[in-house]
Amino acid sequence: MCDIVTHNWGVDFNIISPMENLPRILNIHESTINDSRYQWSSEEHGQYKSEETSIFQFTLSGCGAFDDGDNVHRLPSGTAFLTNTMDKHYRYYYPESLTERQVVLWCNFQSSYSMKMVEEINSRFGYIFHLPETTGIIKKLLDLKSLQESYSTMLASENAKLASELLYELIWSKEKENTGNIETVLIEKALQIINTNSNRLYNAGELADKLSISREHLSRVFKRQLGISPYRYIISSKIEMAKMKLRNTSIPAKSISHELGFTSPVQFTNMFKKDSGITPGNYRKIYRGK
Amino acid sequence: MCDIVTHNWGVDFNIISPMENLPRILNIHESTINDSRYQWSSEEHGQYKSEETSIFQFTLSGCGAFDDGDNVHRLPSGTAFLTNTMDKHYRYYYPESLTERQVVLWCNFQSSYSMKMVEEINSRFGYIFHLPETTGIIKKLLDLKSLQESYSTMLASENAKLASELLYELIWSKEKENTGNIETVLIEKALQIINTNSNRLYNAGELADKLSISREHLSRVFKRQLGISPYRYIISSKIEMAKMKLRNTSIPAKSISHELGFTSPVQFTNMFKKDSGITPGNYRKIYRGK
Repeated sequence: MCDIVTHNWGVDFNIISPMENLPRILNIHESTINDSRYQWSSEEHGQYKSEETSIFQFTLSGCGAFDDGDNVHRLPSGTAFLTNTMDKHYRYYYPESLTERQVVLWCNFQSSYSMKMVEEINSRFGYIFHLPETTGIIKKLLDLKSLQESYSTMLASENAKLASELLYELIWSKEKENTGNIETVLIEKALQIINTNSNRLYNAGELADKLSISREHLSRVFKRQLGISPYRYIISSKIEMAKMKLRNTSIPAKSISHELGFTSPVQFTNMFKKDSGITPGNYRKIYRGK
Repeated sequence: MCDIVTHNWGVDFNIISPMENLPRILNIHESTINDSRYQWSSEEHGQYKSEETSIFQFTLSGCGAFDDGDNVHRLPSGTAFLTNTMDKHYRYYYPESLTERQVVLWCNFQSSYSMKMVEEINSRFGYIFHLPETTGIIKKLLDLKSLQESYSTMLASENAKLASELLYELIWSKEKENTGNIETVLIEKALQIINTNSNRLYNAGELADKLSISREHLSRVFKRQLGISPYRYIISSKIEMAKMKLRNTSIPAKSISHELGFTSPVQFTNMFKKDSGITPGNYRKIYRGK
């Protein structure tokens, strides 16, 4: 009888003086899945405790299947999934119909911080990622095979670096797909207009006009891409510029107000106070004394 | 009249679609401090709202002073401090006695995650770091000058990568000082004994004997360096090995118990159940069916 899974090689990481707020990668393993009885899901994980981790699994050859609750994704070579083991949605399996054995590289993350990050990645980008096998971090993980050790002692920062490199690479693979899309280009243009016209104080309507789109559309895109309204973004960046000038120069507040395009020193003082809780004059005093 | 601070150059980072659980670096600036009236402290930051960030400041030339509540540290070239702006302890200033102007590179971090990380770094390693100006990340930050832009649009993952690189480098600079110290060497030796004798189940006393130290000392070092007792560490690593064998092979549980050095299958089952909540047999069923 053939084993359901064959363990090819693996390294467990021991961390000297672990830190709570760093992402943490526990291990890296290569396995061959021989048999369609193989499967994972949160339901199975839920049957025993102390296994709350995140799993990343990358297909080296063959093909598995990942059910994210809405769709079943095939996982051919160069495809990966990332999920928390306690995520209710997922089920990973090796379809009966397949004959080629699947070879996978997998690792676990563990730390409250990495699990939060994985949750956010899943909710924004889904569970499935496409990475060529030549991707830097995949090559680095495969190279660990040459250690020929079943464990490796690491410093907390070295381990966090490896964990972050993998997580950021996954995020980047999705962000890359989105760059050059219409919304990103629009935001880029908007920021350019705001930043190269530092002596103008646009309102959302004027900014939308310059971009030849509706004010409503601009607001939606800002909210989605930057998390704040165009108006709040413009005011915040003006106030930041004002603070820098107040801290670092002796230009009178009146002139700063004018330079930044506020209609009057009163408007400037009011907006500054609303944002920072104090007046521009008092702000300067804190940094520059009387 | 000369300004207290001269702004040399700086870049603010705009992030497209920021993510909540990534560390975030807001900006990088180079300034010259001309005058001893310059100072920062949480008290001053506390006077206005919306400024809860972390600050990293690196001295390029000249010398400042940082008071962490217990000690005053001089900050010559190659020295840096890292702190949350709301940290009650710190005060940064430019001593009156100095005549050479101080040139500093500084940046702000912002995200609940990076602030937690900075808090942990401060409590473990303090506020002051020594980095040569040739350190990779310092060179990378200085290179941003050549952008000749006052702002830069980045993807969330690119920004997080830069932020993490700086934070991990600071941690690493401290960890490096500690490696090779007696405790780390002891842990390395202990792990080697445990891992190369996988067919033995040492208790803490036996392990201490093999290391020629007292059991109490071994326990203290394990707690400090790995966060758990030697006994818990040994049992956990045995159970992890058992799980791997149960998942990936059809070796009977009795033989696994023997291979891993448990005195009896009953002891193995009890310890496994205590750790995982289920018996070895049921654990195997979950992964391998009936």
